[in-house]
Amino acid sequence: MLGRILNTHQQWLCEQFAVLGFVVTRQVAVADTAATIQQTVREALGRGADVIVTTGGLGPTSDDLTREAIASLLGRTLETDAAVLQKIEAFFAERRRVMPASTRVQAQVPAGAEVLPNDYGTAPGLAMDVRPNPFCANGQAGLLIMLPGPPRELHPMFQNQVVPLLRRRFPSLPPFVCRTLKTTGLGESVVEEKVAKPLEHLVRSGLELGYCARPGEVEVRLSARGATAEAQVKEGEAIVRHLLGTAVYGVDDDSLEDVVVRLLTERHQTLALAESCTGGLIANRVTNVAGASAVFLGGLVTYSNQAKQDLLGVRPETLASHGAVSEETATEMAEAVRRALGADYALAVTGIAGPSGGTPTKPVGTVYIALASTEPTQVEHRFNPLDRETFKRMVSEQALALLRSRLVT
Amino acid sequence: MLGRILNTHQQWLCEQFAVLGFVVTRQVAVADTAATIQQTVREALGRGADVIVTTGGLGPTSDDLTREAIASLLGRTLETDAAVLQKIEAFFAERRRVMPASTRVQAQVPAGAEVLPNDYGTAPGLAMDVRPNPFCANGQAGLLIMLPGPPRELHPMFQNQVVPLLRRRFPSLPPFVCRTLKTTGLGESVVEEKVAKPLEHLVRSGLELGYCARPGEVEVRLSARGATAEAQVKEGEAIVRHLLGTAVYGVDDDSLEDVVVRLLTERHQTLALAESCTGGLIANRVTNVAGASAVFLGGLVTYSNQAKQDLLGVRPETLASHGAVSEETATEMAEAVRRALGADYALAVTGIAGPSGGTPTKPVGTVYIALASTEPTQVEHRFNPLDRETFKRMVSEQALALLRSRLVT
Repeated sequence: MLGRILNTHQQWLCEQFAVLGFVVTRQVAVADTAATIQQTVREALGRGADVIVTTGGLGPTSDDLTREAIASLLGRTLETDAAVLQKIEAFFAERRRVMPASTRVQAQVPAGAEVLPNDYGTAPGLAMDVRPNPFCANGQAGLLIMLPGPPRELHPMFQNQVVPLLRRRFPSLPPFVCRTLKTTGLGESVVEEKVAKPLEHLVRSGLELGYCARPGEVEVRLSARGATAEAQVKEGEAIVRHLLGTAVYGVDDDSLEDVVVRLLTERHQTLALAESCTGGLIANRVTNVAGASAVFLGGLVTYSNQAKQDLLGVRPETLASHGAVSEETATEMAEAVRRALGADYALAVTGIAGPSGGTPTKPVGTVYIALASTEPTQVEHRFNPLDRETFKRMVSEQALALLRSRLVT
Repeated sequence: MLGRILNTHQQWLCEQFAVLGFVVTRQVAVADTAATIQQTVREALGRGADVIVTTGGLGPTSDDLTREAIASLLGRTLETDAAVLQKIEAFFAERRRVMPASTRVQAQVPAGAEVLPNDYGTAPGLAMDVRPNPFCANGQAGLLIMLPGPPRELHPMFQNQVVPLLRRRFPSLPPFVCRTLKTTGLGESVVEEKVAKPLEHLVRSGLELGYCARPGEVEVRLSARGATAEAQVKEGEAIVRHLLGTAVYGVDDDSLEDVVVRLLTERHQTLALAESCTGGLIANRVTNVAGASAVFLGGLVTYSNQAKQDLLGVRPETLASHGAVSEETATEMAEAVRRALGADYALAVTGIAGPSGGTPTKPVGTVYIALASTEPTQVEHRFNPLDRETFKRMVSEQALALLRSRLVT
């Protein structure tokens, strides 16, 4: 609650539950005090949720209060579970570490709770049926699942123990289908203007439609539930693809760098980069893709004018007469790095990220993006008046989109 | 709620509020439906919160429901604000884009609300006093603040408009002091072992102590509230600095790249980079720092062996006899790029990010980091068996830490 830690559990758990067919209605984060934890769980039970998941607070230290607070809320006694204790002792023995006494508390299990073994840590998860449910007006039973906080313990425990448990308890969940179409080169309202009306009949019959704008990208998210979900989402996807054409570059977790590496790999072609204002971000994105080494030969980060001359051989006359941020310099950069590395394609970017360095004719946000290949070099002039990091992200997006659009047409 | 988007607002806002002296009691995320938004705001008002912040749902698309839902909950009419409309029209005119009709909805303002202008987008924020508060048993007034969702609009609006508003409305908040000391090169338990006991007397008198481990770094967070907060945190900081020495590289939002750029700037020295396995991440981090162009000359991303030879002049014999991932190759890379750019310092990294490419003698996670300067080149051999992106992050951290430690000793 002090804002020092980013909560990634909520997104991760929501995605898992959505795929299983659950509707997540609420995510709550509260401070580590027994009263607040109890109040929050009581409210969730009061709303008649079928499943309530807590994360964190199961460890051995003094701020780990969840197990005891919930047992006390539900009037259940805590007892040491011999099998769990043995597993904790084995965990320490295996690592040849002395087991601190405080660790024993993690073997305490509320009466009636099912133990979810932890293969990657010492605190087991716990699942308990709250039936009857004293906190809900209609007595609606709730399944309360307590999971450990560290993601590398939480994730496998959820997948290996919680998913089978949920499938057993809720055998007839309606199918849920979600498809995210990722687009580049169009604004959010333009995307909506193009697709909203033609999707209206599907939305009326239950398709859910969402938009999300990121630097240089807009996502269109189609989701549906029930027997016709698959067909609805499929029809929606066909409509969006028809209307937006090649602006749709990928689906779901695809990134532009994934798509570019995939296209280059399929075509057995290679890429080189010469980056000024993006300072290595494009290379960094491309090399985040496993297998990038098959298509990415290398790049230059020519941040100074001297580096543009020394490393790339950009002519001093070009820099003097047109400036470092110009169509001419971008062209020379792209052609030089392509030649130096013998690549099929080379992208070059030169621009003004700011906050300083702008001029009246070339304000902060100005950028030239060049694509060299066997065809005449193509140069785009863009204006992105954004903060430094968003500018870099946006330019990397525009450069990758330029290459992708060459590869798909 | 489908798990497609990571919520970073909660952390960011919590941190801002903590610094202002507020205690954040609850973070809630709910679906974009009018009924749910109304129910959630009603509950927050019912709990008697002094300040309630909503984010998102102020945009132009059909799933942007927050403004209307809240106006309707509070029985306030919405009217078009001429000044806001003009600003939105100017926003589109400046970018030479046609303004879609749907955008006009963002100029609607609930009766009695204060407009928080948006300098980075079209949707303004809104602040309204709920006084009397019909949803709270004791009528406790609440300040309801509605902010846009995109972080690059939210952050400046909060800092430029919301902070002054909060300081005006809550002039006598108890002081809250928080100091995060950022360390590198030590594990989390080593850090705790060194500092926990010597800080015990301060913790007993109210100092809060937290640790957070990130790839290559451990943060020690000291915070306190009330009249003695400043003194307690200051004493705590002195103790930690004394015990951890140069492992403490910075405070609060400092990053290693900030510190390295600052140190080089102070010394009027320059840096060049030759990156293999980090693929441009180090250059990207360094160029995220405003003013980096004064010290960073440029870099090479030599992903392929061919690029190591062609761009850097690493000798084929070195690659053949020692391999691309070796002390010898790292040394040649660092020395070559330093020479090529005439830099005071050059860092080079070569390693195996995985998932493939490992061998029995050089498994995935192996990396060599070289620092060339006027002194003999220094090479570190590290082993980071991590996933691809964490590996890159960790190596970039180790390389920057190596340079920093040279600059401070």
